[in-house]
Order: sequence, then structure tokens, then C-alpha cells
Amino acid sequence: MSDDSDAGEHEAAADPSATHSPSTPPAVDRSFLDDVIDDRDAAGFVAVGGRDDADLRYLTGFDGPSDHYAYVRAAGASVLCPPAGYAARARRQFDGDVRNERPADHPGERAAAALESLCSPDGTRDVDPDRSARSRVVLVPPTIPHDAAVYLERAGYELRSTTAVAEARATKTSDEIDAVRAVQRAAERGVRRGGRVLAAAEVGPVSDEGDDSGLLWDGAPLTVERLRREVNAELARCGVSDARNTSVAVGAEGRRSDATVHRDEAIAIEVAPRGPHGYHGHLARTVVVDSDGGWERRAYVACEAALDAALGEVEPGADADDVRREATAELAAFGFDPGGGDGGPNAEAVETVHGVGLARRERPRSRSGATSGPRSDATLEPGVVLAVTPSVTDPERGSVRLSELVVVTDEGDELLGDGAHSFTPRE
Amino acid sequence: MSDDSDAGEHEAAADPSATHSPSTPPAVDRSFLDDVIDDRDAAGFVAVGGRDDADLRYLTGFDGPSDHYAYVRAAGASVLCPPAGYAARARRQFDGDVRNERPADHPGERAAAALESLCSPDGTRDVDPDRSARSRVVLVPPTIPHDAAVYLERAGYELRSTTAVAEARATKTSDEIDAVRAVQRAAERGVRRGGRVLAAAEVGPVSDEGDDSGLLWDGAPLTVERLRREVNAELARCGVSDARNTSVAVGAEGRRSDATVHRDEAIAIEVAPRGPHGYHGHLARTVVVDSDGGWERRAYVACEAALDAALGEVEPGADADDVRREATAELAAFGFDPGGGDGGPNAEAVETVHGVGLARRERPRSRSGATSGPRSDATLEPGVVLAVTPSVTDPERGSVRLSELVVVTDEGDELLGDGAHSFTPRE
Repeated sequence: MSDDSDAGEHEAAADPSATHSPSTPPAVDRSFLDDVIDDRDAAGFVAVGGRDDADLRYLTGFDGPSDHYAYVRAAGASVLCPPAGYAARARRQFDGDVRNERPADHPGERAAAALESLCSPDGTRDVDPDRSARSRVVLVPPTIPHDAAVYLERAGYELRSTTAVAEARATKTSDEIDAVRAVQRAAERGVRRGGRVLAAAEVGPVSDEGDDSGLLWDGAPLTVERLRREVNAELARCGVSDARNTSVAVGAEGRRSDATVHRDEAIAIEVAPRGPHGYHGHLARTVVVDSDGGWERRAYVACEAALDAALGEVEPGADADDVRREATAELAAFGFDPGGGDGGPNAEAVETVHGVGLARRERPRSRSGATSGPRSDATLEPGVVLAVTPSVTDPERGSVRLSELVVVTDEGDELLGDGAHSFTPRE
Repeated sequence: MSDDSDAGEHEAAADPSATHSPSTPPAVDRSFLDDVIDDRDAAGFVAVGGRDDADLRYLTGFDGPSDHYAYVRAAGASVLCPPAGYAARARRQFDGDVRNERPADHPGERAAAALESLCSPDGTRDVDPDRSARSRVVLVPPTIPHDAAVYLERAGYELRSTTAVAEARATKTSDEIDAVRAVQRAAERGVRRGGRVLAAAEVGPVSDEGDDSGLLWDGAPLTVERLRREVNAELARCGVSDARNTSVAVGAEGRRSDATVHRDEAIAIEVAPRGPHGYHGHLARTVVVDSDGGWERRAYVACEAALDAALGEVEPGADADDVRREATAELAAFGFDPGGGDGGPNAEAVETVHGVGLARRERPRSRSGATSGPRSDATLEPGVVLAVTPSVTDPERGSVRLSELVVVTDEGDELLGDGAHSFTPRE
């Protein structure tokens, strides 16, 4: 531990260009939708929502407002109906056809109109005009807003749900992997900032508390919330949003965010920031400033071993459930039940294995309690980006978790990030 | 302008407690739903979604994952069905009944089961058992996910949409106003940080650019993106999320985020951060480091006058459209058309007048192009929190905008924030 407070130093500030993203979102090939539309004898595909809808972001690259826009695929063409006032931005960000007619209409109505015109004899391209003219089936994501669904039904369409876009999103292109990699770099800097604050903290008596193992940093008690804010400030400085996903879990369950961090407590920092093109990173690290040994160290060693074992399972054709089971078995071999489903007081429920992309957690997913057989959405294919996070939670003692983010390759897997971690915080 | 770089100083760091929020979300009275259910002879009300759904956040206070939970109101009782692994957190945050049965089922199914049990003779409280037992109508927000709607229909319910929750959200309780006030304080600090960076910047020749009016800060050219990151880092340090709403618009349309800011350009900084309980703030300020006068100053003076005039219209019973029209008329009196609907290259489309709360923009809203008569959702009632943002955009020159956030009171209105603004950036 050092006596130097480094409140004023930030890695990212020294080299802002290191975390600068390309200004255009990763290009996506939307032609898979044509096959799905064809297979199901549909007229087209429609998605309605806003910028937080991962499917819409994937299909359009459009970083619009939080609701009221529609994407339509039919006859081999892609149409975006942006909300009023967003046409110029939509044209800059979306490489298909931007239709700005009747912006005050409901996006469901506008989608129906676009679908109609794409499927009319004049609008048809590259597809059998008889089939698409005949079909009144439209494919939609299961969670399309109900009012949009009703507008499509009123326009004479019959809705069928498809998870094809979520499935396509599971395997990333190299551009998408680069986008995740850039965010992951920022995630590492954010977590490292937390470690540096802890390394620079001093142990001393904290007012109103009955012991002298509290941490002081930059002239004041280091609370859970101050530490979380420092991590988030570093993420912001790297050009990514914390996306309200940063958790700092310290000590026993029920600790308040304004409680002081103590030298002998496990401090689990978990981030899942979102970059400028909507892609997430994911990183969990746990440190103890000055451990008395015991539970925290054993839990840490168990998580390290579980992480190694689980990553050893990652290869094309493997199943996300197998990766999770391997982590769980390794933790059990060290005498630990896996981390409680509800996590610590500030923690998200821990999900040991899940995909990462435009959604913080996406396919392939593995949940404990799932049936034992392989699940259709849990197979690892090349291009899958996977977060693996073994964790141990004890309501009396705290939470220890360690994660890595890997991409499944033809040969096995590749780490996104440097993989560095240590039980004691580093400068 | 000062020669001191203040890269290492931050207001918030000096006093973290100043921006610490109470740990419980503002309490909300959900009994208005009973009247709506009663009026429409319905069995109950159901909402399904995740933490970004403002209605669900309002009704539950639950900061859960991004999807897969349900809220049910029936027979005077409130039920939350959290996703697997979130029951403990739900019980800490939600003051109604948390039902954890069959967590793997779709939230639409779980909502139907909860509704059924609340309306059964055993479950009924405080309402006419005949009526609620008889009715198979369930009220839902218009944008309920379609798959959830289908589950409810399969369970024998007929869906009717209601905007009652969005309407209730428009008028805030004093606890809610305090939550907005706390976020707005952080918004002011974030924007002020931008001003301090600009005040501390030096004018000098920037490599690869053909003039010597570029700004240098902390040893490197001050780009649009660096400035945006500094603002966001300060927001994070104050404990709020930038919520990906921070825009820094500089100079002519099409300027890239890695372009250097120049001394004579209008720099419009707009933030709408989100606090720990989900409430937003909203603040827009524009400065010029070293103006040559002319367009920027005239636009600034016009926006100041428009802001004063528009705020003069804010009182109970007035209409948001009138407030917007007053701003527009004042800008026109100075010879300016109001800001283009599409904003600058980095800007959200500017909406002159809108409510602020659990959604960044919510009722009451006023949009240019709306029909001239009063709209049912645009009336100002006591408790409404309103952002007023006159703006002027010239594609060749840039964008100037100024905002205030006010709460409508019985007497008129009260500013949330200090209202401070200046044309030249201040230390």
C-alpha cells in the first residue's frame, strides 16, 4: 500500500486517442432475414422500439431516441422510419432507406405502410412477387410493443414471432468483436482505477466506527459509493457509459453504500459498460487491501481455478451449460457452493456464463437450474463473445468474483483483455 | 481565460456527501390504479418489462435487470414478480407483495397467475367481489411486450390499454421533486466542469489544422470528445449516470467528435443524467471561449430572452404548447427561426418543452407541428417538472441553446437549480 493519493491522475487522460472508437458502427449483413422471411412464407419482418432495443440497434446502427421508431425488412430491402426530428441523424447512421413520411403516425402504422410499399409489384426486388404479394404474415421479435402489433394487425397482417435477430446477434463479426474489445479496454481501465484508489488508501480510524481498519482516501473515509464513483468517472473518461451496471460489493450483505470500506474485506468490482456503438464489455475483479487470510483468500483461489477450468471448456460446438457446470464443479471441489443467485447488497444476480454484445447479457446464456440437456441457444459457435464469472457469496462475509471475456474462435477461444488480476490491489 | 489546467480538481470530490441520495426511492401512491380499474370495469392492471420501463420503475421502485418482470395491481394490492435470482433485491426495494413462484415462466404467465389469485374470492380485498370475479378485462400500458399480451390473452383476459400510469407520472410528489433536484445538482456540476475546462484551455496552433484558434487543454488539443468525457466523468463522480444523453455540439454541422474546439465557436453542452432512483435532470448551456461577437452573441441573447419569456408562461392551468410558442415567438422577434428539428451533428433533436422524470422526456410534451388546440397531455399542473430549452441552430455556424428545469407550483413555478449561465466560460 502506498501513501500517495493519486486522486488527480488518470491513465485515460494521458492518451485519449487510445480509447477513441471509429465513428461508424460495425456493418451488419441483414440478408439472413430474407432467408427467415422466405422459410416462413412471410411478407417481411418488422421491429419497433428505441435505442435500448438491441435488435433494432443491430439492424440499423441508429442511435436514436428511446422509442418510436421502426425497422422493416421486405423484398430484400431495409427501411428505417425514424421519429420526427431524427431523419438527418438516421441518414448519417443507417445504410438503408430512411423514410420520413407521416412522422406523427405511430411507428406500427408507418411500418405497415413501408411493408405494403416494399411488397407492392413496383417495390418488389429480388424475390418471387407472387409469394410476397400473397403473404400477409409478418415476422416480429416476441417483445414488439403490443400497440405496434395491433397496428400491424389492423393493416391486415398476421403476426408470427421470430428470435432470428437475437440468434444472429449471438455470433459477432470481426468489426463487432473490435467494438467489444475497445469497450473491454475501457472496462479494464475503470476497474484498474478502483484498484489504484484502494492501493493508495490508508488504513486508519474512521469516525463513528468502532475499529481502526477503515480506509481513508483523498482526505476522507473511502465509502463503497466513493469507490463506485471513481470507477465510473474513469469509464466516462475512456468514452464509455457505465450503463448503470457498475456494482461494488463489499463485506456482509446489507452494507450501505455510504459505509466505509475496511482493509480486510473482499471488494468485488463488476462493470459492464456500454460503448458509443452500443456494445458492452464485462469485467469482474475482487481485491482485499490487507487480508487476514482465511475465507477471502480461499474463495479467491477457488474462483481463479474455476475460471481456468471453465475457460478450458470453451470451444466451438461446446455448450454454455457445460462451461457453467465446469465452473460450479471446480468451486465445489474447493468446498464452495457457487455464488448465491441474489448476489450481494449492491450486486446484480450473478449469471456465471452469458453472451455479451448489444445487450449486457444475451445469447448464449446458461442459467443454473436449467434442464440438463443441451439448449438450442447455448451452443458456442465461432464469433460468440462470452463472459465467464465464477463467484462465491457468503452473506456474512461478502462476495468474491472473477471474470474473463473471451471470443470463441475456430481453434478454441481468445481472451478479450489482458487477463491481469491480483488478490491485492495494485498501483 | 486562465493558464492553469485544473485537470486534477473536481468540485464533487471535495464533498461527496453533497450529492448522496437517500437510499430508498420516493414513495408512490398506487391507489389511483384502483380508480382506473374500477372505472373501466376491469379485473386489474398489468405491466411487464425491465428497469428501463419508466412505468414499471414508478410502480415498483425496483431497479432490476433489463427485462422479464411483471407488476400486477388488483383488488387493491400490488404484486411484483421478479426474475429468477432477484427476489431478495425486489423485497428490499418494493413495498408490496413479491411473488417468486415459477421464476422460469414468462412474466406474462406469472402476471396472469397473480391476477387470477388476487381476484379469486380468497384473494379479494376492499373491492366488490362480484365485479372483479366477473371481469376478464385487464388494463395494460400500450407498449406492453406483445408476447406478454399474448400470454394474458391465452389465460382468458381481454386487454385494454391505458395511459393512466404515464399520466400519473407527470405530476410529481415532493419526494420525487427532491430526487430530480439532486440529479439536477449533479447536472450543474457536470456542465460547470465543461465550462472550467474551457476556461482553463489555452488558444494555440493545433497541429494539422490551418489556423491558430484551436484550444489546448492539459497538454493536448481539446477535442469535442475530450470535453464530453470530462463532463461525463464529473457526472459519474457526482453519483449519476450520463445515461448516454450528453451532447457537446460545436460549430458547423458534420464536425467530428475528434475535431478540435476553437476559441470563437459556440459550444453547446447538454446533459440529461439519471440518478440512482431513475429520475433524470436536464441542463443545456452554451459558451464561446473568445467570441468575435456576431451570430453567436445574438443567438445567445435571443435564447436568454426566449427562456425568460417562456418561463413567464409557466403556471398551473397553462399549456406546454403555449410555453413553446412563447419561446418561438421571442426567437422570431430576434430574427431567428427556432433550432432545426434535427439539431447538430452530436445533438439530440431539440424538443423545446417537455416533462422530465423517470423518462428523460415525458408528459407534458409540446412538439412543434402539433395541432393548434390544447392537447390533453400538455396541461401544466402543480408538481409537473418541465424542461424549457430554446435553441437556435445554423448548419454553417453551430447551435446555441439554453435551458432551465422548473417545477410548476400552486403559485407559478420554482427553478430547480441555480439558473446561472454566462456567455463566456467561468472558472
